[in-house]
Amino acid sequence: MPVKVDAQRLLRRLDELGQIGDTGDGGVCRLALTDEDKLGRDLLVTWMHDLGLRVDVDAVGNMCGTWPAGATEAPVLCGSHLDTVRTGGRYDGNLGVLAGLEAIETVISSGAELARPLAVASFTGEEGARFAPDMLGSLVYVGGMPVEQALSTVDRDGVSVGEELARIGYAGPMPCPARPPHAYVELHIEQGPVLEAEGAAIGVVTGVQGISWTELAITGQANHAGTTPMHLRHDAGYAAAAIAVAVRELCPRVGTVGRLDLHPDLVNVVAARAVMTVDLRDTDEAALTAAEKALGERWAEIGLAEGCMITARRLARFEPVGFDEAMVDLVEGVAHEHGHTTMRLPSGAGHDAQMLARVCPTGMVFVPSAGGISHNPAEHTSPEDIANGANVLLDLLVRLAQ
Amino acid sequence: MPVKVDAQRLLRRLDELGQIGDTGDGGVCRLALTDEDKLGRDLLVTWMHDLGLRVDVDAVGNMCGTWPAGATEAPVLCGSHLDTVRTGGRYDGNLGVLAGLEAIETVISSGAELARPLAVASFTGEEGARFAPDMLGSLVYVGGMPVEQALSTVDRDGVSVGEELARIGYAGPMPCPARPPHAYVELHIEQGPVLEAEGAAIGVVTGVQGISWTELAITGQANHAGTTPMHLRHDAGYAAAAIAVAVRELCPRVGTVGRLDLHPDLVNVVAARAVMTVDLRDTDEAALTAAEKALGERWAEIGLAEGCMITARRLARFEPVGFDEAMVDLVEGVAHEHGHTTMRLPSGAGHDAQMLARVCPTGMVFVPSAGGISHNPAEHTSPEDIANGANVLLDLLVRLAQ
Repeated sequence: MPVKVDAQRLLRRLDELGQIGDTGDGGVCRLALTDEDKLGRDLLVTWMHDLGLRVDVDAVGNMCGTWPAGATEAPVLCGSHLDTVRTGGRYDGNLGVLAGLEAIETVISSGAELARPLAVASFTGEEGARFAPDMLGSLVYVGGMPVEQALSTVDRDGVSVGEELARIGYAGPMPCPARPPHAYVELHIEQGPVLEAEGAAIGVVTGVQGISWTELAITGQANHAGTTPMHLRHDAGYAAAAIAVAVRELCPRVGTVGRLDLHPDLVNVVAARAVMTVDLRDTDEAALTAAEKALGERWAEIGLAEGCMITARRLARFEPVGFDEAMVDLVEGVAHEHGHTTMRLPSGAGHDAQMLARVCPTGMVFVPSAGGISHNPAEHTSPEDIANGANVLLDLLVRLAQ
Repeated sequence: MPVKVDAQRLLRRLDELGQIGDTGDGGVCRLALTDEDKLGRDLLVTWMHDLGLRVDVDAVGNMCGTWPAGATEAPVLCGSHLDTVRTGGRYDGNLGVLAGLEAIETVISSGAELARPLAVASFTGEEGARFAPDMLGSLVYVGGMPVEQALSTVDRDGVSVGEELARIGYAGPMPCPARPPHAYVELHIEQGPVLEAEGAAIGVVTGVQGISWTELAITGQANHAGTTPMHLRHDAGYAAAAIAVAVRELCPRVGTVGRLDLHPDLVNVVAARAVMTVDLRDTDEAALTAAEKALGERWAEIGLAEGCMITARRLARFEPVGFDEAMVDLVEGVAHEHGHTTMRLPSGAGHDAQMLARVCPTGMVFVPSAGGISHNPAEHTSPEDIANGANVLLDLLVRLAQ
């Protein structure tokens, strides 16, 4: 398809959306179902209506804009998410949604007629930064979690998804699970350093590594930091630190302790309680399972030695996902036709695409992240890379819909 | 002196004071210069006035009740503090103040005439749980810190000692440093397990171990927990955990990481920043210094290996203190005359007495802590032990004032 997207229009929309939740340092804080998320959603709905799309919102707040508005067949779907982590950037998720919108606008403007409808979705709570698990909206969309369970999920303050959806006005009428689309394609920034290091313009994503999230609650005994001999301590803070060090030692491909909170968190009191999270990921299910087992044994040993009680709660667990081979070949072929250098790679991060892969042929297109930085205000992808990715996405949608 | 304190009256006052900041689980939260601290101070002032004491408040809020009210000579002083840690008990500090009040009331009631006045002090901010360093009030009282510096000390929220003193009405007119008392005696719970384990009713305190408090701020780089290869991470959370484990390995007599805060503190974001505290204590200055040096080298190594910047800020540093030998002998002698088993031991915790030891002969009396538990709602000392300690204190005050 010789038609190209209007890259300037796409960049302007990314800028405008990035101002909602702007943290003043180039970053964005737009946690799922907050006031900022509502404003971002409102802006997207306005843009969808301006293009004449039919806007559907489902029971967990997933939003979908379909063209033509009266279409009833299963669409070729693209999309991503609008929510960010607390210290997020402007591209993660947002690019996939707005590039999809841009691709559809380009098709409409071109006067092209397609055999199938096109649609762009924004899924609720992909980041998991407020409500666990991550990819909550797309998980429910494909039937991987009952709606009721998702709606009763609470954040740290005990506020539920259902309450927040009602509050911001995005508890929609469409049922979940949704009818499967014909195919799904997601454009996303890589969020890692590999494409830049390899000099590849387009990443052909082969699948998504598996994710294991566990929250550990460690109970020791508060005591005076000066008078309690070391051998009589039950220090929840020490146990947490020892486990965090063990995560580095025993993790599979990657492992992270991103959250660690002590109580009472005072300089001269041995911590009575610690809450921490362990994030493990690997493209190989066996390696992920082995790391979970090794770490589980290690933290049991640490708890026993310190006289602390440790309870583990699984926050999320997804097996590695391999994308449809024909879709992977198609993404690679289109990128080559556009003259881009490409690289096949698995995704290090979880994405809505891994959920859609359960119900339809699914592919992903990566564009480079400067310095590999993401989940950070310094997150950046060049205008040229954004245009490249959006044009590859446009071409993929058109081919799949013809 | 054959007269004994009214132990029931002392216990009633401990109960009444313990209801201010009652945490509902037997504990007390009465952080320095909060509304609860003000209420505790108000109650003490009421009791002092009821006894006819002269109440003096100095520039950092230290409170002193003197009998006879018109006395001008240097008094025999006793006391301790009313502030608690966030998860404190009912005895730490409070016992020393109220037992002093009880001893003075007993002397007044007995009609005894003494050569010197008696006084009981409550020092500001002994715990250091809100404002560092600990023993702030007594440090200023003896001239160890300028008043201006103490008043400009801020808590985590940036609120200063001076602002809070003015707010709660305890910025008094008396100058600091104060005129040294004739002698100082402090009754305190042991806050450790030694007396109970040794079956001793009275602890004869030989001195106070040295304290080293350091706050470390660790700066790494926020990044995506799934896509950033382990070797490219600058994980402030990992560095903090490794340092906490090193504190256990390299600490002198005791070492504690009681506070550890990550930012942004999210499951799927590598921590950009960590703030933690290191509390080291030993009765031997050389051992304390050696541990500080070894840990300083270790955290520099950890920061270098992880690519994190670590800045250290000293929050408090006190050398070990040995009490006046004649005072130690006197405490032991009086306890033996009362028929108690005794044990000489250093204090594991810091106390106002170590500051007073800079300016006058100083002694301390310990009574057992059940299970060695302190800085905890379960902190407990039996009524019998409390009566024993208060009667030893009464006798010491009378002998020193005769």
